[in-house]
Amino acid sequence: MGGMAVGGGGGGDFGVSGGREERGVVAAVAWEAGKPLVIEEVEVAPPQPNEVRLKILYTSLCHTDVYFWEAKGQNPLFPRIYGHEAGGIVESVGEGVTDLKPGDHVLPVFTGECKDCAHCKSEESNMCDLLRINTDRGVMLNDGKSRFSINGKPIYHFVGTSTFSEYTVVHVGCVAKINPLAPLDKVCVLSCGISTGLGATLNVAKPPKGSTVAIFGLGAVGLAAAEGARIAGASRIIGVDLNSNRFEEAKRFGVTEFVNPKDHKKPVQEVIAEITNGGVDRSVECTGNVDAMISAFECVHDGWGVAVLVGVPHKDAVFKTHPMNLLNERTLKGTFFGNYKPRSDLPSVVEKYMTKELEVEKFITHSVPFSEINKAFEYMLKGEGLRCIIRMEE
Amino acid sequence: MGGMAVGGGGGGDFGVSGGREERGVVAAVAWEAGKPLVIEEVEVAPPQPNEVRLKILYTSLCHTDVYFWEAKGQNPLFPRIYGHEAGGIVESVGEGVTDLKPGDHVLPVFTGECKDCAHCKSEESNMCDLLRINTDRGVMLNDGKSRFSINGKPIYHFVGTSTFSEYTVVHVGCVAKINPLAPLDKVCVLSCGISTGLGATLNVAKPPKGSTVAIFGLGAVGLAAAEGARIAGASRIIGVDLNSNRFEEAKRFGVTEFVNPKDHKKPVQEVIAEITNGGVDRSVECTGNVDAMISAFECVHDGWGVAVLVGVPHKDAVFKTHPMNLLNERTLKGTFFGNYKPRSDLPSVVEKYMTKELEVEKFITHSVPFSEINKAFEYMLKGEGLRCIIRMEE
Ligand SMILES: NC(=O)c1ccc[n+]([C@@H]2O[C@H](COP(=O)([O-])OP(=O)(O)OC[C@H]3O[C@@H](n4cnc5c(N)ncnc54)[C@H](O)[C@@H]3O)[C@@H](O)[C@H]2O)c1
Ligand SMILES: NC(=O)c1ccc[n+]([C@@H]2O[C@H](COP(=O)([O-])OP(=O)(O)OC[C@H]3O[C@@H](n4cnc5c(N)ncnc54)[C@H](O)[C@@H]3O)[C@@H](O)[C@H]2O)c1
Ligand SMILES: [Zn+2]
Ligand SMILES: [Zn+2]
Ligand SMILES: [Zn+2]
Ligand SMILES: [Zn+2]
Repeated sequence: MGGMAVGGGGGGDFGVSGGREERGVVAAVAWEAGKPLVIEEVEVAPPQPNEVRLKILYTSLCHTDVYFWEAKGQNPLFPRIYGHEAGGIVESVGEGVTDLKPGDHVLPVFTGECKDCAHCKSEESNMCDLLRINTDRGVMLNDGKSRFSINGKPIYHFVGTSTFSEYTVVHVGCVAKINPLAPLDKVCVLSCGISTGLGATLNVAKPPKGSTVAIFGLGAVGLAAAEGARIAGASRIIGVDLNSNRFEEAKRFGVTEFVNPKDHKKPVQEVIAEITNGGVDRSVECTGNVDAMISAFECVHDGWGVAVLVGVPHKDAVFKTHPMNLLNERTLKGTFFGNYKPRSDLPSVVEKYMTKELEVEKFITHSVPFSEINKAFEYMLKGEGLRCIIRMEE
Repeated sequence: MGGMAVGGGGGGDFGVSGGREERGVVAAVAWEAGKPLVIEEVEVAPPQPNEVRLKILYTSLCHTDVYFWEAKGQNPLFPRIYGHEAGGIVESVGEGVTDLKPGDHVLPVFTGECKDCAHCKSEESNMCDLLRINTDRGVMLNDGKSRFSINGKPIYHFVGTSTFSEYTVVHVGCVAKINPLAPLDKVCVLSCGISTGLGATLNVAKPPKGSTVAIFGLGAVGLAAAEGARIAGASRIIGVDLNSNRFEEAKRFGVTEFVNPKDHKKPVQEVIAEITNGGVDRSVECTGNVDAMISAFECVHDGWGVAVLVGVPHKDAVFKTHPMNLLNERTLKGTFFGNYKPRSDLPSVVEKYMTKELEVEKFITHSVPFSEINKAFEYMLKGEGLRCIIRMEE
């Protein structure tokens, strides 16, 4: 975790010409699975066609970074630059980029929107065929190569964003242009988990005003789902978590009641049915645990209940239920990134923050300078707090 | 299977006074599981509060009658009068009935609408708390007794309708008042299976115009679901059945392509994904087989696909799928009676027939006089045809 010697091209150069050359910058490189990141001088190549080079100002750490950095179970891909929740400014654009120009304020996103495939053309889907999240790919689509190198040796990208770097190169389809007045040190957290939970409720579960909503899992994603239920005007928001320590914090996110499955002998879906006269109107699962998914489905009211799955399950997980639970007119859905299309919809999520409808500050519990990025990993590994902002410039 | 000696009160008496007395009528009584019905003289008590007595003119046979008559697996309840798809005329009404009067043309329905419970008040549900189908109950709600008797000994009701009788007593909440110009010998089939399949597509799957729909199971319910897809303007309707004999008939219901899972080594969901560039937009499962339910879910396109389950599964059936199939933005729903509220919505289904949007005739493949009702059972047991109309007056 070396010093902060900034390479040649640092600073506020947002001219188009700046984008024609390699840029020496500092980035936090993961050399090995589970080992602390090392701040290194890295060369960042100029953007190729349909790519943009961004100056990252703020980035935050999400479980997905930690999960792939730990590389338990997946194919390890190292050395790699992690990071996918961030806010930055366009430094230069590659050929054919017309939607963005140097100086634009943006959020890079781990999944994209080509605006051309069947998914992008569908009103319902955000699962772009071209730019859908790919955690195995460590290179850019255009030429199958990395834009990062140290002494000519490539450093892999992560989910097309690699925001733990002063500068990064991203496909134009993975960049949301946002209101330049929005404070990037706050809205950077809208790149991933917070929007995922918020959208799961607002775009998919769509609780009617006055309804009862259960949220399974009170991590950042679940709390964002609760925030969505609060914004939608739900009158009861029931938080469910195996860790009762989550309950105090959840109150600030509109959660009105708590159930810890461990406190009950019966399945939690039965406990919830009892306290809600037959079931909740909506449930949103944000744990990744398949038993919680099943409970979240079975706790919704027959006739009209809708359950939404958000958590990413284990690859061998099996969702099981009696089909009568469906025939009794329950609906089961899943969502990816809260059904937001990154380019089309994310700017409006930022606006929800600007109009104070959405409270983002309460998700931000820590902040560290870039040189201390490994502290952010420690907070997350200890389960301390929700989001730690990593300041690139201090 | 005795003679057709009609009891005292037969004929066209629709005065209110006629409803104050027991009525001697003929009915087809099931004395024992699986044994031919016997036409018997039966006394039908007058309607009690919130009940109506109906003269049945036409009734048809549905698998559910046969299933409970065979009484394999359920608690047997005999002697019993089956029948739940029918058209008739109100003969008399009990105390407190204001929505119906003698002479009204009606369809009795196996499930009801009290208009007062949370389900009836919800726009989405048709699963009335008070009058939801109950296959175990053989008596009326009002007093827990039967309205049918032979020599003072009660004969049990079936799903609150018992239409295999010249007259029957039904809760007012289980009666849809329809256009008196609608031919009862046709629209009687709209009481159950046909509306179930039609509504599953039109009310729940809601295929957009030009979309691709898969229908699993090409019995009467599945063909009605296909008819719904045709009405909705689907451009490809893929019929799936284990019995290739179903395919020829299905063409008349708008089915454009056929897949028999037995003809393929791969799971049918993969076969369908291949011929549809990733999956169908909508699927409707009308088999009752849990493997077909799973295939119907997994064959819908990620991003926007919706699968609707209609078939009634075995009580030990388990629906299993990998949660990623949901997270990839597929929706899974089930429906009961096509989500139609019997009293509020069934009249409009009859109107769809009157305006020739919905073709009902093609579902009617046989017709027998009441005295030959056991022939209808034979056709169904042999899998011959779709619906057999039983004419009460000839
Ligand atoms: N679909 C997407 O686009 C998307 C995006 C980001 C995150 N996610 C997923 O959302 C999930 C939540 O993310 P997070 O960052 O909030 O995680 P987190 O680990 O901070 O929170 C998860 C919470 O769930 C609780 N939990 C675990 N098992 C439980 C159970 N059986 N019952 C009740 N509570 C249980 C834990 O105690 C914890 O508080 C993860 O699976 C993550 O991978 C999905
Ligand atoms: N939900 C409701 O309100 C409601 C109302 C009426 C009927 N139903 C149910 O709808 C289902 C269909 O009713 P129907 O009267 O049309 O039955 P049916 O027996 O006439 O037709 C079922 C068809 O499914 C086919 N099939 C069976 N297993 C299959 C599989 N694995 N893959 C593909 N095809 C398969 C059969 O060959 C048959 O052609 C039944 O389960 C019935 O109980 C539900
Ligand atoms: Zn796309
Ligand atoms: Zn994330
Ligand atoms: Zn009701
Ligand atoms: Zn039926």
